[in-house]
Order: sequence, then structure tokens, then C-alpha cells
Amino acid sequence: MELCRRSLSNILNMVKQEPLPISTRILKNDLLLKALDGKPVHRPPVWMMRQAGRYLPQYMELKNKYDFFTRVQTPELAAAITLQPIDLIGTDAAILFSDILVVPQAMGMEVTMHEGKGPALPAVIRCMEDVEQLIVEEAAWHLQYVYDAIALTKQQLEGRVPLIGFAGAPWTLLCYMVEGKGSKTFDKAKAFCYTQPEAAHALLQAITDVTIAYLRNQIKAGVDCLQLFDSWGGLWDKEDFAIFSLPYIQQIVQSVKYECPVILYAKGVWHSLPELQETGAAALGIDWCNTPQQARKLTNHSITLQGNYDPVKLLNPVNKISQDVKAMIDAFGTTRYIANLGHGIIPNIPVDHAKAFVQAVKEYKAE
Amino acid sequence: MELCRRSLSNILNMVKQEPLPISTRILKNDLLLKALDGKPVHRPPVWMMRQAGRYLPQYMELKNKYDFFTRVQTPELAAAITLQPIDLIGTDAAILFSDILVVPQAMGMEVTMHEGKGPALPAVIRCMEDVEQLIVEEAAWHLQYVYDAIALTKQQLEGRVPLIGFAGAPWTLLCYMVEGKGSKTFDKAKAFCYTQPEAAHALLQAITDVTIAYLRNQIKAGVDCLQLFDSWGGLWDKEDFAIFSLPYIQQIVQSVKYECPVILYAKGVWHSLPELQETGAAALGIDWCNTPQQARKLTNHSITLQGNYDPVKLLNPVNKISQDVKAMIDAFGTTRYIANLGHGIIPNIPVDHAKAFVQAVKEYKAE
Repeated sequence: MELCRRSLSNILNMVKQEPLPISTRILKNDLLLKALDGKPVHRPPVWMMRQAGRYLPQYMELKNKYDFFTRVQTPELAAAITLQPIDLIGTDAAILFSDILVVPQAMGMEVTMHEGKGPALPAVIRCMEDVEQLIVEEAAWHLQYVYDAIALTKQQLEGRVPLIGFAGAPWTLLCYMVEGKGSKTFDKAKAFCYTQPEAAHALLQAITDVTIAYLRNQIKAGVDCLQLFDSWGGLWDKEDFAIFSLPYIQQIVQSVKYECPVILYAKGVWHSLPELQETGAAALGIDWCNTPQQARKLTNHSITLQGNYDPVKLLNPVNKISQDVKAMIDAFGTTRYIANLGHGIIPNIPVDHAKAFVQAVKEYKAE
Repeated sequence: MELCRRSLSNILNMVKQEPLPISTRILKNDLLLKALDGKPVHRPPVWMMRQAGRYLPQYMELKNKYDFFTRVQTPELAAAITLQPIDLIGTDAAILFSDILVVPQAMGMEVTMHEGKGPALPAVIRCMEDVEQLIVEEAAWHLQYVYDAIALTKQQLEGRVPLIGFAGAPWTLLCYMVEGKGSKTFDKAKAFCYTQPEAAHALLQAITDVTIAYLRNQIKAGVDCLQLFDSWGGLWDKEDFAIFSLPYIQQIVQSVKYECPVILYAKGVWHSLPELQETGAAALGIDWCNTPQQARKLTNHSITLQGNYDPVKLLNPVNKISQDVKAMIDAFGTTRYIANLGHGIIPNIPVDHAKAFVQAVKEYKAE
């Protein structure tokens, strides 16, 4: 892959000064935005979380050549990876190839990614003093490479489909910043909240402030919609989710929703769907542990839902996948619905099975 | 600790021939059994999952002396560990110190336990042939040490509180038998079910058959009630839980419920609470991601519920724990309720905090 620094620097100048020209914002396929807006569609839009990922041989080629943060921090690579599933699988939206941990990095923390082991943050947050040493005001400006990747991707997409930007929810980022690595239960992160609530709230607020600036810059750079990932929200009970996660999600959504629709994906947080709905999000992501019927009921049939196919189910035979997708759309309904997985696609899914998932949505006809 | 082989061999002879004498079955504290039976109680019973565990210095003493399976397989050690929380924390029930993975072991699989790393099963199940080589008919007889531990514990308990026996649900055991180790998502185990459903069902049925014989022997040895742990049930959606877990749980409950009440703890399976209720279980365990109100609603206010304090919340100050426990009982109600955690207690909980949890239940007075 040849890096074309010259064309990029033109775009950069553009982004720094003003939004992309309107022409790049006109979308040939705006199903996703219509679904987010509750408008009628002839069939639901479809994309897959982690759709630019290891199940694609073309992704593996770049992965084998460049390490993780090189791929993330090089706009040409990030854009190329972002476009792969659009070209190869035919999804109705692109989601920027990046990582939620670029925010802790921009706040001054070291983050490394070890093949097969997940992320590591060697110097974790342990107390208020550690929180106070984080970069907050200028952090979003350390993420220029993300805005550059967005501008480049938008240019290369040529309006074929919308581009989704994203960030991690403050609680989910706190998990990694305090625990220092992945965990099933993030006990240390929860313990931090219980034993040092002031430091925890200071940290959550700092992450929130950075995230708002970060997402505003993503919007300026050209994303058509945003997704906020609270991947570890489901570790809290309803009461503590309302204390340590929800208020910060709400601040973020309220700060950007007038410029850009937001999809909230809070894995496992079925107990707080009504509260998430009230944040002002345009859509809520649902995992497979909720049924479409129950999710519709809990959200009073009045918000766009996204999900919720179990990614492991993509190992089923193709005809079973097609049947399942049809049943899923029947259950969610075609309006106010975005077909997706309930979590990120996993590496060992055959490409044909991912295609079958997308194709089944495209061929959907209600009976 | 001195092993008294002689007194044990007497008990063994007894167990092999006939149930324990009635005198050892008369309970001074039968709050748990009353709650399971839906009878009125002056306050709910309380115990804690993994209450005989690493947060207790007295447990650590034995842990540092004997390796995991020595502790599990030596009836005197298992009994001593089982009694520790009764003496030290004052819970209303004892739960036998053992492990769900003794069943795969009895079926012929090697299981090792590595400090801080969890279990490892080096030779996993990969196909129908592997399933066919498992020991089924005689497996339950390889677990005599469990029955001996039960008999010894019952003798040493002297009727102070009931003794809970337990086993893993077939799906949860399949997870380890196929994946070979712990996992956040058990993708290999799920993939096995999707790609080799016949082998998966054969394996689930084999585990079910062994588990029924195993639990019947536990009852004969003297347990007062049983808990079935489907720790990984929450990885399925409702549809696949109904295929790969529920029918086997149902077989087990139906096979033992007339002799002994069964508590079903299926972590994260809030979507199938009504179906779990219909298995004939005496109680359902609830984790903290469900609210008491929602859990009562989903089970039509007509079954005993157990749970659901987040174990990490035991890191809160003692007065906050007491407040929380009061609120939890207020929300669940005093009848048809067993106060417990929503999952096992974690190692770094101060003993005083565990005591405060139990004490708050004992001092509960409705307003």
C-alpha cells in the first residue's frame, strides 16, 4: 500500500479550517440515517460491529504488515481497512477503523496491544493524584490522525454509504485505565469506584470532557453518525450504572446529538434501556441476551434499535443464517431498526457467512 | 490437620448402605428450607456463593498446605472448609466445598487447576468419537469422596444449618470440556454446538445422565438441598438456551426434585426466567443485572428467588452494605427469598464486610 502524503495534507488543511464540502456528504445510500431518523425504509440497513476485522483475508494482509497502532494512526491504512467491508461484504455503513483506547493514549497513558492478549496499560490510575496528571484540555488535539482518517475515508467512500465514528463510554474507558488490561469482571475498576468515588467521578468527568471534544472533531471531520460503546456497562447493577456510567453517557449524547445522531451500545444493560432512551440517543444497540420483543417493550416501541445476532451464530450453515435473519427482522420490524450483530464479529467466521448475513437483510421481504 | 481415617470409614459404610440417621437430619436452623418451601419466616435465610473461599484467612491456611484437588478429594479437608463460614461468618446454610469440574474428571477427562489461571483440560472434546469415549455409567461412582465429604460434614454440622450439594449444569460443563479452559465468551464451545449439534447433544445428554446419578448420591449421602450452576447459560440467546441448556437442566431437576429441593442459578439468563421456573426448581438464583422488581415480575411473584448483591459491592463501607442489604430485602420481600450474592464472593473482601452482609440480613426488620 502506497501512502499518499500529499493528497492527505490537502484534506488535513480542509478539516482544520472547515467541514467537508457538501458534495462529499450527499449519500447514495442513506438507509442508516433514515432508520436513525425513524423514517420508512423498504428494508432495514445492515452493518456489523467490527466488520473491518480479522475474518477478512484482506485485513489480515495489512495486519501482518503493520502493527496495531500503526494501522490505527496511519490515516491511509485506517481508511483502507474501513473501506474493506464496504467493497467486500456490501454493508450499508462504514465504521472508522480505530480503537476506543486512543482516548486514554491521548490523555497521556501508555497503551500497548499484544497479539492474542488484548490491550495493556502498564501505568494504571490508582488515586486522585493520578487522575490529576491526565491531559484533558489538549487531549482531543492529539487525535488529529483520527480526524485525518475520517476525512480521507469520506473522500474515498464517495458518498456510497454513511461513515460511523465512535468512542468508548467513560465507564468502559475507566475499566481499562484502572485495571490496566482486559478482564471478565473488572473488579479493580469497580473497587476503585466504591472505595474512591471522588477520584472515580473526577476520572469519569475528565474522560467525558475529552470524549465530547473528540466526537465534535469527528463530526467536523465528516462522520455521518456516532456510536458510543459501553462494552462493560453490563457489569453494574441498575443502581450503580445510574451512578457511574449513565450520567456521563448522557452528557456526551446531549453535547453532540444536535449535530449528529448517536447510537448507544451498552452491552448487557437491558435493565436501563428506558434510561438510555432518555439520554437523547437516536438508537440503542441490543445484544442477543435480549429478545427483540422484550427490547421493543422496554423501549416502548419508540426508538430505533440495532442488533442483535449472536456473532458466534455466523458459524451456522448459510441457510440457517438466512432464516435467522428473516426471523430477526420479523421480530424487530423494518422501521426504526438497524440489522447488526449483538457484538463484534469474531475472527473465525467464514467470509461467505458474513456475506450471507448482509445479503439476507438486503433480500428481506415481509410476508 | 489430622486425618481421622477410622471414624470416616464408619461413615462410609453407613452411606453405602443407607441414608444418614434421622437425628442428623433434624435442623436447628431450617430457614433455608422454609424459604424454599414458600413458608413464612421471621427473616430471610442468608448464605453466600463461594462462602468457603479465599477471603477467609483460615481457608488460606489450608490452601497453602494442600493443592486444590487434594482439598476437594479429601473428605476431612472438604468438610473442614465447608464448616469455616458457618463458624466464622454465621451463614444460615453450608455449601459443600467442591468443584463443578469433578464431573468431567469422573467421566475420564484430565482436569488441572493452576493458581491464578483457573482450570485446564488438556485433552478437549472435539467430535462425536471423543464423546463416545467418555465414562458415563460408572462415572458417579468415581465421586465417592464427595459423598464421604457430605456424610462427614453433616455429622460435624450437628444439624446447625442445612447442607447444600451442587453440580454444574450440562451446558456449563460442556464449555470447559470443549474449550479446555476458562473464557469470556466460550466461542469454541458454542461453535461446537452449532457445527456438530449431534455430538453436542450426545455430550450434553451424557453429562446429564452422570449428573443425575451424582446428585442422587449426594442426596443419599445427606445434602438437604441442591444448587445447579449454569454459570455460562447467559452466553446464549433465548432460542439457543432453550436448545442447548434448558432441556438438560429440566431433566436433572425433574429427576431429583421429589427427593430434594433444587436452586437453579443460571447467571445472566434473565430472558428465560419463566422457562427456568417451569423446570420444577424450588428457587431461582438471580444476579445483580436483574432488579428484584423485574425478577419478581418475570417470575410472576410465585417462586423463591435467591440473590443478588454484587460481590464487588462488599468493598463498600460496612454501613453502606447494611443499607444496601435492607433495601435489597425490602425489594425482594421476606418470604420466598434467600439473601445471597449475585455471584461468588471475591478474594479481596475484608472478612468484616462479609460478616456485615450476613449480620444485616439477620437484623432485618421490615418497616
